[in-house]
Amino acid sequence: MKAAEPKRQRLTQAGRRTRERIIETAAELMFHRGVAGTSIPDIQAAAEVSASQIYHYFGDKQGLVLAVIDHQTDAKLAQQRPLLDSLDSIEALREWCDRAADRQDAAGCEGGCEIGSLASELADSDESARTGLAGAFDRWEEPIRSGLARMQARGELKESADTAALATALLAAIQGGMLLSQVRRSTTAYRQAVSTVIDHIESHLVR
Amino acid sequence: MKAAEPKRQRLTQAGRRTRERIIETAAELMFHRGVAGTSIPDIQAAAEVSASQIYHYFGDKQGLVLAVIDHQTDAKLAQQRPLLDSLDSIEALREWCDRAADRQDAAGCEGGCEIGSLASELADSDESARTGLAGAFDRWEEPIRSGLARMQARGELKESADTAALATALLAAIQGGMLLSQVRRSTTAYRQAVSTVIDHIESHLVR
Repeated sequence: MKAAEPKRQRLTQAGRRTRERIIETAAELMFHRGVAGTSIPDIQAAAEVSASQIYHYFGDKQGLVLAVIDHQTDAKLAQQRPLLDSLDSIEALREWCDRAADRQDAAGCEGGCEIGSLASELADSDESARTGLAGAFDRWEEPIRSGLARMQARGELKESADTAALATALLAAIQGGMLLSQVRRSTTAYRQAVSTVIDHIESHLVR
Repeated sequence: MKAAEPKRQRLTQAGRRTRERIIETAAELMFHRGVAGTSIPDIQAAAEVSASQIYHYFGDKQGLVLAVIDHQTDAKLAQQRPLLDSLDSIEALREWCDRAADRQDAAGCEGGCEIGSLASELADSDESARTGLAGAFDRWEEPIRSGLARMQARGELKESADTAALATALLAAIQGGMLLSQVRRSTTAYRQAVSTVIDHIESHLVR
């Protein structure tokens, strides 16, 4: 479920565009400076809107943060489609993770994960953000879980494999691997972390 | 290697105590509020020292952050000893990770990882902190890697097992698992993430 589902339908087209511009600007600033390091005046100036427009659309900074979480999650999942929706083979899992590693390499391993960074900063200080981020991770984990479940339903993965646990383990490897790669400025850790989990999934294949 | 190795030897005992009090206070504040959310005046007030004392011992906030990274790493590794130095069996790996999960449960899954949080906040904004944190993760990974290497040297782990890669994968599972557990307020993700990697290590045992 998305964290912020406001009265979007009732906005005019111009209103929707303004709202989107505020969210995109805030997301960009928060990604680079952190949420604490991004003030409403910063967002106003960068998005060229008034404070009252921000408060009109989002109520307060916390409301804007929820919209940023949804925006970053939508963008993250969109970036990974259509592969994300066909994670029902070992080859697809490997290709999906390789592409993510290649993107990190292309970025010089800077930036880290947009969602993971928000999670690390906000999980203990903003309860509504925490539940929004839990929803974001659920939305990310779901296509992994359902891909593995399809492999199991087709008899390719052993009945004894806990597909939900394996999906969580892969998401954790992605998150931990990205953090180590960001700190080490090399995708080796990311590649080793996700490969280990995918190798383990492969060991559950019915031969 | 530690990030901050200043002229510690030349300090008097009273000086060392003051320096330690500043570091402990800064570490505590930065853990709860983030580095950006912790000012030198905040640290002054909480540690009951003057700004000039802080600048005397650490040069600037960046120098203090390096000392905090070392302090948190020392504390993290000390907390995990002596188990951390005997990770040369599947049972020891499981017990070590179970204890960490139990500590997270006891804390209501709040707080996250002291080192991971610093890494997420600082990796892109402070190059000296990034290299300090890379060193911190290396110090944490080393006893995992050397435990696995001892298993392999004794012929318990297959020659084909890449012990360095498996150690990195386990550290990534710990980091990613802790983040997911913090956001979900449940250690299930952590337990599943580390179990998956340890199960995979177990699959490399010589039977």
